[in-house]
Amino acid sequence: MKAIDTASMRAAYRPGFAMPRDFYMAPEVYESDIRDYWNRSWIWVGHESQIEAPGDYLVFDYGPESVIVARDRDGDIGAFQNVCRHRGSRVCLEASGNTRVFVCPYHAWTYELTGTLRRAREMGEGFDPADYGLLSLHLRNFEGLLFVCAAENPPEIDEGLAQLAPLVAPFDLRNTRVAHTATYTVPANWKLAVENYMECYHCANAHLDFARSHSIKDPGHKTEVLEQAMHPRSRAAGLPVQKVQRYEPGKATLFYKRYPLFDGYQTGSRTGEALAPLLGSLKGFDGGATDLQIGILNNFIVYSDHMVGYRFLPVSQMESKIEVVWFVRAGAEAGIDYNHDDLTWLWHVTSLDDERIIRHNQEGVKSHHFVPGPLSEMEWGIAAFYDDYFSVSAG
Amino acid sequence: MKAIDTASMRAAYRPGFAMPRDFYMAPEVYESDIRDYWNRSWIWVGHESQIEAPGDYLVFDYGPESVIVARDRDGDIGAFQNVCRHRGSRVCLEASGNTRVFVCPYHAWTYELTGTLRRAREMGEGFDPADYGLLSLHLRNFEGLLFVCAAENPPEIDEGLAQLAPLVAPFDLRNTRVAHTATYTVPANWKLAVENYMECYHCANAHLDFARSHSIKDPGHKTEVLEQAMHPRSRAAGLPVQKVQRYEPGKATLFYKRYPLFDGYQTGSRTGEALAPLLGSLKGFDGGATDLQIGILNNFIVYSDHMVGYRFLPVSQMESKIEVVWFVRAGAEAGIDYNHDDLTWLWHVTSLDDERIIRHNQEGVKSHHFVPGPLSEMEWGIAAFYDDYFSVSAG
Amino acid sequence: MKAIDTASMRAAYRPGFAMPRDFYMAPEVYESDIRDYWNRSWIWVGHESQIEAPGDYLVFDYGPESVIVARDRDGDIGAFQNVCRHRGSRVCLEASGNTRVFVCPYHAWTYELTGTLRRAREMGEGFDPADYGLLSLHLRNFEGLLFVCAAENPPEIDEGLAQLAPLVAPFDLRNTRVAHTATYTVPANWKLAVENYMECYHCANAHLDFARSHSIKDPGHKTEVLEQAMHPRSRAAGLPVQKVQRYEPGKATLFYKRYPLFDGYQTGSRTGEALAPLLGSLKGFDGGATDLQIGILNNFIVYSDHMVGYRFLPVSQMESKIEVVWFVRAGAEAGIDYNHDDLTWLWHVTSLDDERIIRHNQEGVKSHHFVPGPLSEMEWGIAAFYDDYFSVSAG
Repeated sequence: MKAIDTASMRAAYRPGFAMPRDFYMAPEVYESDIRDYWNRSWIWVGHESQIEAPGDYLVFDYGPESVIVARDRDGDIGAFQNVCRHRGSRVCLEASGNTRVFVCPYHAWTYELTGTLRRAREMGEGFDPADYGLLSLHLRNFEGLLFVCAAENPPEIDEGLAQLAPLVAPFDLRNTRVAHTATYTVPANWKLAVENYMECYHCANAHLDFARSHSIKDPGHKTEVLEQAMHPRSRAAGLPVQKVQRYEPGKATLFYKRYPLFDGYQTGSRTGEALAPLLGSLKGFDGGATDLQIGILNNFIVYSDHMVGYRFLPVSQMESKIEVVWFVRAGAEAGIDYNHDDLTWLWHVTSLDDERIIRHNQEGVKSHHFVPGPLSEMEWGIAAFYDDYFSVSAG
Repeated sequence: MKAIDTASMRAAYRPGFAMPRDFYMAPEVYESDIRDYWNRSWIWVGHESQIEAPGDYLVFDYGPESVIVARDRDGDIGAFQNVCRHRGSRVCLEASGNTRVFVCPYHAWTYELTGTLRRAREMGEGFDPADYGLLSLHLRNFEGLLFVCAAENPPEIDEGLAQLAPLVAPFDLRNTRVAHTATYTVPANWKLAVENYMECYHCANAHLDFARSHSIKDPGHKTEVLEQAMHPRSRAAGLPVQKVQRYEPGKATLFYKRYPLFDGYQTGSRTGEALAPLLGSLKGFDGGATDLQIGILNNFIVYSDHMVGYRFLPVSQMESKIEVVWFVRAGAEAGIDYNHDDLTWLWHVTSLDDERIIRHNQEGVKSHHFVPGPLSEMEWGIAAFYDDYFSVSAG
Repeated sequence: MKAIDTASMRAAYRPGFAMPRDFYMAPEVYESDIRDYWNRSWIWVGHESQIEAPGDYLVFDYGPESVIVARDRDGDIGAFQNVCRHRGSRVCLEASGNTRVFVCPYHAWTYELTGTLRRAREMGEGFDPADYGLLSLHLRNFEGLLFVCAAENPPEIDEGLAQLAPLVAPFDLRNTRVAHTATYTVPANWKLAVENYMECYHCANAHLDFARSHSIKDPGHKTEVLEQAMHPRSRAAGLPVQKVQRYEPGKATLFYKRYPLFDGYQTGSRTGEALAPLLGSLKGFDGGATDLQIGILNNFIVYSDHMVGYRFLPVSQMESKIEVVWFVRAGAEAGIDYNHDDLTWLWHVTSLDDERIIRHNQEGVKSHHFVPGPLSEMEWGIAAFYDDYFSVSAG
């Protein structure tokens, strides 16, 4: 396949404007999206609580790719390409489980939990199993959240995580667990799904339920007043109020900001009332929500009592999955400490809205008459995505 | 995407023969078909009776394109690309309706019925809404039939319509309304559907019901005798008997000819009996049917008591829709003035035949062993289509 | 469409290793696979018993291609492209039948059983039907098995068949008939299905039922012992024990070898017991199975009492069909001479296994992280396939 002509794509890109049709519609661009952007970006694959015991593993797929994340006998976590080093079969077929080794279902090549090839039959002399371990990916465990990157030289992330660590410490994210996962399939290129998340210009119009409670990314006087009112409450609850915003080529994008909810909302709930036990060491509800981004592709909203993880996975050029993961404090039990439907309500209805508007966006972008228009003052996040895309894809 | 290599396609084209496999099978050709042929051709989108009141609109889709046709407050009709000038969302999601403005469902950019951008929030200084109206298309209203063209310089059509006007005047097409619309999906490239309509070489073999009553395009002595017998009847009914045939590069193809039905047939009905009230100022049935083409893509059969519009819409490279629209005199009521099933019978069964033969044609054309053969003496319309295709696509 | 860049593909091919991702994933490679490999290879299309009477025909499809195999009034068998010489419609729509002529369903061009164009209406002067017969394919009838090749100069096969003839003579394959045909659809490129058949490295791991009874292609001491024990039994049954192995560029691949089943197995059955009447002139069960390949794409397993034909047909780039055909001695009747379910059990369960492992192979090969690994000592058949592929595709 042709490599993407990054130069011509960049040339077509007019800063401050949306991207042209080919960015979403050209088949060769989709190929390079996976190869040159996704496979060089940091990707959030799960939480360490999903693989607690030695031998536990999970499999994370995106586009044509599949990654095994496994805890070995020493308790260390590793990430490997789920592709046999022999003739390329998927090695691990289950989405999660516990195992002693990974045995390829085709010819029984057998890999250790560390990815090392233990055994392959009939390979003749001169074959050294040490040369044929599963390809490994870089992995970072940040407060229990697991991120991988397949690039040889991943974008800088360690300094960034060190910067974020004290800010998220009060939530004790390590001490959370997945309460629910939902997937929304949308017949659109993944980039339109990412762009949609990068801006809240559409929120007032398209997310009536969200807009009733959230001021996130909404500029203007009212928000500033709310923000000033929230800060003492945040400090009282034990939360720092600094903002982090790192958009630099060659580095994983970072964003951290606590936004105020509207008065009467303690968390992202229908009624405004709390949904679950407070996270971490929080001393109370500050009526805020943290917008947290660790790499463009990995987004989290941290309320005082739960966290929502959001991602947009390519399935094919014209199909994507919006995946939403709800986290609560470890030990919290459904039906006792929280109500499942109440917990998931807001981001379920919001995701249904998103599926609809992204789908209509794609329908229009298919037209040869689509002319990329100017971004609004609330869509700076989209420009940040474009910058990251070109920076990472250029390799 | 690569532009179609018109030169090499032309080179492969051997006049008097069918076109080679790539014409139908190459993905890049399909892209250019929409961009360079459909988007520069006149396309019949509807009838003014479908948007009678100010604020009435209809949406017409073909391939990846979508067009809004709307009547503004002054009663004028305009046509616009259904693509938001911001980030490309479809603006209008309904197939038809009545509205005061078009509000984009994504970020609420709001457009007037004339396409002008009325309002966009948060766009900062220097943003002039006047620069961001919906892109407009050329529009012609010919006897109530609405045609659009997205090209900057559309193929000549006005002189042609002036030439046709006196011929179709007796039918008073402005004074008709849609009685029924039917869609037949066929797993074939749209060009095979167009070619199928361009010739009646297949009629005797594939359309037994049609061939029982219609002599259309069938040469030979019998037809000429029938034609000579019809002419006095046509004149008596108030119909001119001239023929119009314009196949010229740079101009919309025009064809107008009154053909005789076989004896005993007053119209395109199962029994030969009349189906509906006479159209326009006709004084009686002449036992004829008019073959009317206004641009290669837009075909009509005008009987004395109803009209059938025929079009072939690309859905994707290997899928098309045959769309058939039946018109009767305005005011004629189903169940009283005409029987719905009788009215639609002939072109329903004929379209089912067409779906089948076009599908089998496509199956064969997929073969690498397909060698384009010579066109028969009855397939001159196909050659006319090829000429128009190359002429328009060359831009 | 671009021609496959055979040179760059060859360059990427590292002998002794699997092929890289593009070999299976690039759309332009699939186009050339059909055009340059399949359409130049010998393909097994059926058995003469399927078209016994004059006028009998069968239609064999692969990828976008369709072939008519018909017996004419003189009893001779011919093969023709199922593509009308006019505008390319499929001519014959039934999978099999008996007819006097082939009439194209589009414009009624009428072809003789010999492919000659008998009649075409309205073609004007200068049209010579003799120029427009159905395109014919080379055809060979080997012991009743019918093979076709669309190439102008097919790979050498006659010397090869002469070499095989005495070896298969005792089975009297001409005197067999189809007992059952089963099709297994697999979402994978056809090459992965072929490769899977070319090696039995996976058998021990993936085909537990097969591996219980078959030693085929399994090297090592035990097999040799079994083989030595079988040879006298084979000779006693009337079967030669020579091996034929021809892997030469420009010639159809040939392979013939009688392999021992494990002790207690007379044939490829669940229990080891015989399934059907002995084939041909065999005097008894030798406890063996013949692996017969006539061209890479055409594979047969000949037991003493039945034969199984195996093929792997492209449907699209990412979809294939595994087709399995069971043959028994002509005259043998289901329910009397053999039990249908017992006869088909082994290769039904084995094909289900194959569908699964090929599918998982494809899933992994989609990954941009797939690195072709070394072939095992049991996968020499895959290298033979690659050699044939490059040799034939180079034309």
